[in-house]
Amino acid sequence: MLSIEKYQQEFIQFLEHYSAVKEPKNLYEPISYILDLGGKRLRPVLTLMTADIFNGGYKKSLNAALSIEVFHNFSLVHDDIMDDAPLRRGQTTVHEKWDVNTGILSGDAMLIMAYQLFENYEAHIFQDLAKLFSKTALEVCEGQQYDVDFETRNDVTIPEYLKMIEYKTAVLVGAAMKMGAIVAEASKADQENIYEFGRHLGIAFQLQDDYLDAFGDPKTFGKQVGGDIIENKKTYLYLKALEFLNQSDQESLIKLFSSDINDVNAKIEQAKEYFVNSGSANATKEAIQLYTNEAFSVLESLNISEDKKELLRTFGNGLMNRTV
Amino acid sequence: MLSIEKYQQEFIQFLEHYSAVKEPKNLYEPISYILDLGGKRLRPVLTLMTADIFNGGYKKSLNAALSIEVFHNFSLVHDDIMDDAPLRRGQTTVHEKWDVNTGILSGDAMLIMAYQLFENYEAHIFQDLAKLFSKTALEVCEGQQYDVDFETRNDVTIPEYLKMIEYKTAVLVGAAMKMGAIVAEASKADQENIYEFGRHLGIAFQLQDDYLDAFGDPKTFGKQVGGDIIENKKTYLYLKALEFLNQSDQESLIKLFSSDINDVNAKIEQAKEYFVNSGSANATKEAIQLYTNEAFSVLESLNISEDKKELLRTFGNGLMNRTV
Repeated sequence: MLSIEKYQQEFIQFLEHYSAVKEPKNLYEPISYILDLGGKRLRPVLTLMTADIFNGGYKKSLNAALSIEVFHNFSLVHDDIMDDAPLRRGQTTVHEKWDVNTGILSGDAMLIMAYQLFENYEAHIFQDLAKLFSKTALEVCEGQQYDVDFETRNDVTIPEYLKMIEYKTAVLVGAAMKMGAIVAEASKADQENIYEFGRHLGIAFQLQDDYLDAFGDPKTFGKQVGGDIIENKKTYLYLKALEFLNQSDQESLIKLFSSDINDVNAKIEQAKEYFVNSGSANATKEAIQLYTNEAFSVLESLNISEDKKELLRTFGNGLMNRTV
Repeated sequence: MLSIEKYQQEFIQFLEHYSAVKEPKNLYEPISYILDLGGKRLRPVLTLMTADIFNGGYKKSLNAALSIEVFHNFSLVHDDIMDDAPLRRGQTTVHEKWDVNTGILSGDAMLIMAYQLFENYEAHIFQDLAKLFSKTALEVCEGQQYDVDFETRNDVTIPEYLKMIEYKTAVLVGAAMKMGAIVAEASKADQENIYEFGRHLGIAFQLQDDYLDAFGDPKTFGKQVGGDIIENKKTYLYLKALEFLNQSDQESLIKLFSSDINDVNAKIEQAKEYFVNSGSANATKEAIQLYTNEAFSVLESLNISEDKKELLRTFGNGLMNRTV
């Protein structure tokens, strides 16, 4: 097993080799651009790590890891068009740097290229990877659709919200790990368990994202603290607050989240007060811990050494205690 | 072997079973909508026909045929966004009926669903189908990019144009047929030859489209005759005319195609005069015949009965003598 940093390095080196620009340039340049923007490379690192955990050797899983990263970046390019986002990782988004049509078409090409990265695996591994990929990718689309639908709905429930983040974020974390297991030819039971580990960790990760967006330290968070509040996003914090508040406070919070308020700092402060006083902030922390524990409990069933389980626990705890 | 009409019926019946709307509705309703809009179903019919030609039984190829049709419709949804087209097959386009974001996301889902349709095939057939699909789909994206690039270029050559229509249109016709051959487990040589037959026929088909757009009979053509001329599209007719005309006429034709002229009928008549008088109209007819003959010459190498070859010739001639 290598360190996380070493897996990252190995992945980035593999990526550099991949993203050479081909013709037509207007199709492939935006693809290199977005792939080279950086990011934590969390998902591909999980694929490499999992391949090693099941004694497959991480090198064999580099193509699968890259497929996951190419798909993730495809979804960012298309999501950024849909959200009309100007920036991604502090840099201009593809549709802003080029145009919307370029973003659509380059994204489409990336989705196809993600499948092509499975082609070097033998037929039965190829089929397992591609099936998992298709199922996951379609769920990510469904998650994105639910997210869009929720923007104009006022009756979103907590289970619906959890399903949305599961589809939009968590299943790809599960799939990233399962692909490592598939390439390593782990048993079907181990494949399923590591998927469940990743899926639960992915939900915890997204809830942590929701929490940090409101309560993160502006010095370390990287993004604007309170971004979700400004955009009236119905996060777990918001939905849980609505559940806990009395009718009058409910109405005030709904009003706070339905208007374009000029003094954003006051809005953020007020929303955070509701989140804390209602008990929603604590409930969110508890949910993060709950999903993390769910993930850890799956580890018990895995057919791997205690050392490796400990490594996965350390990784999970690291994610949950992050400030970024 | 069934008749073309019977293959169409069988395909449409299979499609009806497929396009039931799932949740989230806003993702899947547009998919049913575009798939149910109709069309000639040319590509899937070719898949079914080819599976029968190689004695595979067309039923086994229904999923592959549907994959090709789902992909084709995916490309229409995204292309229509890029072209800002209001109508498709006489009906409102997806992004007009819903919105651009819906068009992007439903299109993405269709691309994934096209891959999923291979999942019922055994591993080695699955891999062959998915590999061919990815290669073809990426070429279609590249063809679309070249088409977009050509809009703002004034130095497009005939070979570049032919490569563009090959990628944007012809490779999918070749792939549709090759998939029938793959499912039927035809020999690699037969698979390659039927692909080449379809690819050449596809190029002839697109050149015929270019020709009919200018010289089709308004009573039978369906679309507005002269549409390409109105939109200043650099078709084979236009590029070949530029090649044949003297410098002064070249400049006049370029001018005719660079301005927004109010009297579109006069513009169409003038362009057609250039196409006829320069010899470009005839050269286009010759090119159509040339690519059709290329397709037919590939038939000689196929390991199938003379009856079946004759059937493919009849089909090809039918396409080339069409008025729609």
